Amino acid sequence: MTTKIPARLYLSEDEIPRYWYNIRADMKEKPDPMLHPGTLKPATAADLEAVFCKEPVKQELDDTTRLIPIPEGIGEFYRAYRPAPLVRAYFLEKVLGTQAEIYYKFEGTNTSGSHKLNSAAAQAFYAKEEGLTSLTTETGAGQWGTAMAMASAFYGLDLTVFMVKVSSGQKPGRKALIETYGARLVPSPSTTTESGKKILEDDPDTGGSLGCAISEAIEKAVKTDKCRYVLGSVLNHVLLHQSIIGQEAKAALDKYGVTPDIIIGCAGGGSNFGGLIAPFMGEKLAGKSKTRFIAVEPASCPSFTRGRYAYDFGDTAKTTPLIKMCTLGNSFIPSANHAGGLRYHGMNSSLSKLYRDGYIEARAEVQTGVFDAAVRFMKAEGILPAPESAHAIKAAIDEALECKRTGEKKVILFGLTGTGYFDLSAYTDYNAKTMSDYIPTDADLEKSFASLPAVS
Amino acid sequence: MTTKIPARLYLSEDEIPRYWYNIRADMKEKPDPMLHPGTLKPATAADLEAVFCKEPVKQELDDTTRLIPIPEGIGEFYRAYRPAPLVRAYFLEKVLGTQAEIYYKFEGTNTSGSHKLNSAAAQAFYAKEEGLTSLTTETGAGQWGTAMAMASAFYGLDLTVFMVKVSSGQKPGRKALIETYGARLVPSPSTTTESGKKILEDDPDTGGSLGCAISEAIEKAVKTDKCRYVLGSVLNHVLLHQSIIGQEAKAALDKYGVTPDIIIGCAGGGSNFGGLIAPFMGEKLAGKSKTRFIAVEPASCPSFTRGRYAYDFGDTAKTTPLIKMCTLGNSFIPSANHAGGLRYHGMNSSLSKLYRDGYIEARAEVQTGVFDAAVRFMKAEGILPAPESAHAIKAAIDEALECKRTGEKKVILFGLTGTGYFDLSAYTDYNAKTMSDYIPTDADLEKSFASLPAVS
Repeated sequence: MTTKIPARLYLSEDEIPRYWYNIRADMKEKPDPMLHPGTLKPATAADLEAVFCKEPVKQELDDTTRLIPIPEGIGEFYRAYRPAPLVRAYFLEKVLGTQAEIYYKFEGTNTSGSHKLNSAAAQAFYAKEEGLTSLTTETGAGQWGTAMAMASAFYGLDLTVFMVKVSSGQKPGRKALIETYGARLVPSPSTTTESGKKILEDDPDTGGSLGCAISEAIEKAVKTDKCRYVLGSVLNHVLLHQSIIGQEAKAALDKYGVTPDIIIGCAGGGSNFGGLIAPFMGEKLAGKSKTRFIAVEPASCPSFTRGRYAYDFGDTAKTTPLIKMCTLGNSFIPSANHAGGLRYHGMNSSLSKLYRDGYIEARAEVQTGVFDAAVRFMKAEGILPAPESAHAIKAAIDEALECKRTGEKKVILFGLTGTGYFDLSAYTDYNAKTMSDYIPTDADLEKSFASLPAVS
Repeated sequence: MTTKIPARLYLSEDEIPRYWYNIRADMKEKPDPMLHPGTLKPATAADLEAVFCKEPVKQELDDTTRLIPIPEGIGEFYRAYRPAPLVRAYFLEKVLGTQAEIYYKFEGTNTSGSHKLNSAAAQAFYAKEEGLTSLTTETGAGQWGTAMAMASAFYGLDLTVFMVKVSSGQKPGRKALIETYGARLVPSPSTTTESGKKILEDDPDTGGSLGCAISEAIEKAVKTDKCRYVLGSVLNHVLLHQSIIGQEAKAALDKYGVTPDIIIGCAGGGSNFGGLIAPFMGEKLAGKSKTRFIAVEPASCPSFTRGRYAYDFGDTAKTTPLIKMCTLGNSFIPSANHAGGLRYHGMNSSLSKLYRDGYIEARAEVQTGVFDAAVRFMKAEGILPAPESAHAIKAAIDEALECKRTGEKKVILFGLTGTGYFDLSAYTDYNAKTMSDYIPTDADLEKSFASLPAVS
C-alpha cells in the first residue's frame, strides 16, 4: 500500500477547475453534424433554439474551443457540492488482493445523488440568464429529474419533469424529492401531450421509455411561452458540463503525480463517461498518453456493443434533429426488469465517433454480475452505489483481478456516478435472488433497427 | 459576504483529529454515576462488561482523561468518509437576509447517511479486537442500524438489529440497506426474545419503542456466546466517539479564525449534540468562551424541556443500569405521527447535568415548523436534511432571523447530522399538508413519569 497517497485526494476550493473541457476540439475527425429532420441539412443554432436554451446551443455547435470558462453563477453553485471526492480504493484493493491501484471519482455526495447536477446547474443558470421562466425535461430512473428540480429551485425556475412511467411507480421517493423541490412530476406517457396520447393509443400498457418522455417534454416546451427543454445526457453540451468531473479528477491526480492506465465509466447517453474522460482523452488524441478508455453499458441496452452507427432521432416521436450515433433504433425500449438508468437507445455522437475510430473500448454487462460487484464494493468501501455506477465497478474489479493474474500494477480510475438510495428495491431483489438478466435477441434488435430513418 | 471564508472549510487528511474529546474531564461537577439496578451502588466495569464491549466500558467510566487517542484501526475507517464537510451557508444567509454567519457540519455524506457511523466504527472495531464474533443492537428511524451494519460488514462481525416496528414498516429502504450489508433485521417487539413476548402480551398492537428494542437486543446479547450489545446514543462512550464531529469542526474553524457565538444541535439521546459541542464546551467550562449551546428536541419527545432529572432505566423492560438523566420515564412512547428519530425517553447524563447546571439551553419544536425549516434549507443549500437534523436547522434559522431583527452579526454553527433519503414519506405528508403536530399533555407525562424507579 503506497502510504504517500491519501485515501482522499484533495483539491481545495481554489483548485476547482474554472474551465470545461470540450473534447471535440481535440478530435481531428469531428463527429458528423446534427441534421434537421426535414431538410436533412446540418442543424443551425436557430433550428435548435426553438427547443433548447441559447448558450447550450452555442456550446452544442462549438467543436473548436477546447476550454470554455465556467460562469461564476454556475461556479458558485458548484462550490456548494464540489470538489467531489476522488478516493483511493485502498479497502477494495485489499479485499481483491490486487496490486493494481484503484481510484474512483465519487459524484454522489450532493442531494440529487449523482453527477447529473453538474449539467442541471449549468442549464438552469443559462435559462435564467436568458430570461426564461420555466423548463421541461424527462427523467428515467430519476437522477436527472432530481438534479433539475434542485437546480430549478436554486435559480428560481418552474420545472415539469416527465418521468418514465415504470420508474415513477417504482420510485415514490424520487417523486417526493422532486416535488419537495417544487417541480411538477408527470408519469410518461401521459395524456397531457399529443405525443403521449399517440403513444398510449398505440400501446396503452407501455411502461414508457426515455424516448417517449423526451417527446412529451419537447412538445410541452415548444407550446409554452418563455419555456425551453433541457436534456440530461446524449448531447455534446451536456458532456461539456460533465467535463468538470474529468477536470477535477485530473487536477487531483496530477497533484499527486498519478497517471491512469485505464479509465472506466458507465454509459447510457454517455455524459458521465464523456465528462470523466475528456481531458485524459485530449492527451491521448495528442499522442501524449496510452490510457485505455472503457465504457460499460447494460447488456439489456447495448448501444455501443450491438448498436448501429447511423443517423437516428433522439426520441420516439421522431421530433428531434437527427444525430449520428451508436443506436439501437429510436423505438427500442429496454426490458422492465432492468434496474436503474442507462436505458437510452442511443449514445453521444462524439463518443460514438471515438468508439468507431478505436479510441474507446466498450463492454456490456448483465445486471446480476453488476449487482455482485456493487455489493462487493459497498462492503469494502462503505458506499451504496447506484446500479448505473455499479457497471463501472464491475469492469474496474475485473481489470484489477486481471492485474492480480498477470502481476501488472496498473492504475485504474473509474467514475462512481451516484448513490443507490432510490434503488433499494433492486437490491432487495438481488438479495432475495429474484433478480434476473435480460439480453435482447438479434430479432428484438432487428425490430428496433427498423425504426431508424433512411438517412445515410 | 466575507469572501475570505470558502463555502467549504477544508481540512486535509493529515488534519483529521487523532483524539476524541471527553467532555466529562472538564466538568468540575461530574455527572452522577450509573447505578447497578439491584444494589443501587455505582455500576462497575464488571457489571457493564456483561452487556457491553470492554474498551467502551472503560471509556464509559473514565471521567478524567480529556483526550483519548483514536486507534489506527478506527482512524483508517474514518478516513474513508472523513473529514466531513464544514460548510459556510452562504446561500441560506442570502435567502434569510441575515448578517449572521451560519456554518454547518454535515455528517450525511457517508452511506449510512448520518453521524452514527462515527461510533458504529469504534464499537465494531473494539468488538473485533476483543475477539467477539457477533453484536446486537436496536434502531429507531434506522440511522444507527444502518451505520452498525456498515461497520459490522467492514470489520467482519455478525449483527442483529432490532428495529422499532413502526419504523421498519415505514422504511423498507432501511431494511434493504441493512440486509444488503449482511445484517439481520428483526422488527421489535418480536417473539424472538422474552422481553419482546412480554411487551406484546401487554400490548399486542404496539408499534414499539427504542426502549423495547433495547430490551430485546440486550437479552439476545447476554444469551449469545461471544456476543455483546452496542448502543447508538445516550451513553458517554458514544458521545466520546461523536466528539470527532466537534474536534473536526473546531479544527476547521480555528484554521479560518472563526469562533462560534452559538452552537446548535438536535438532541434525541444526545450523542451528536454532545459530540459537536465537546471541545467548545471545554473552552466554556474553562472560562475561555461565552459560546451559547442550544439543544433542540421534538415537542413530541421533550426530555430536556419537560422531563424530570432523575435516575431511570435505559430501557422499557428495566434491565439496564440506572442513569441520572433528564427523562420522560422509561415507559414513554412518542406518538406514531412523529417522523424520524429523536424518540428516546431519556438524555445522556453528562448533557443532562450540564443542562441542569445552566451550561446548555434547550428548546422543543413541533414537526411542521421543523419541516418548514427543512424545505427552506434544502431549496437554498441543496441538501435534503434528515427530520432529526432539521430540528437544528429550525433553531439556526430562528437565531439568524433574530440577528436580522437586532442587527447583530453572530456566528452560528449547527450540526447537520444526516440526510433524509429514507424520510421522504414524511416529506410527502408535509407537501400534502397532511402532517400534524403532537405534544404530549401533562397527564400523558405524569403517566410515563410513574414508570420512574423509586431512587433518589
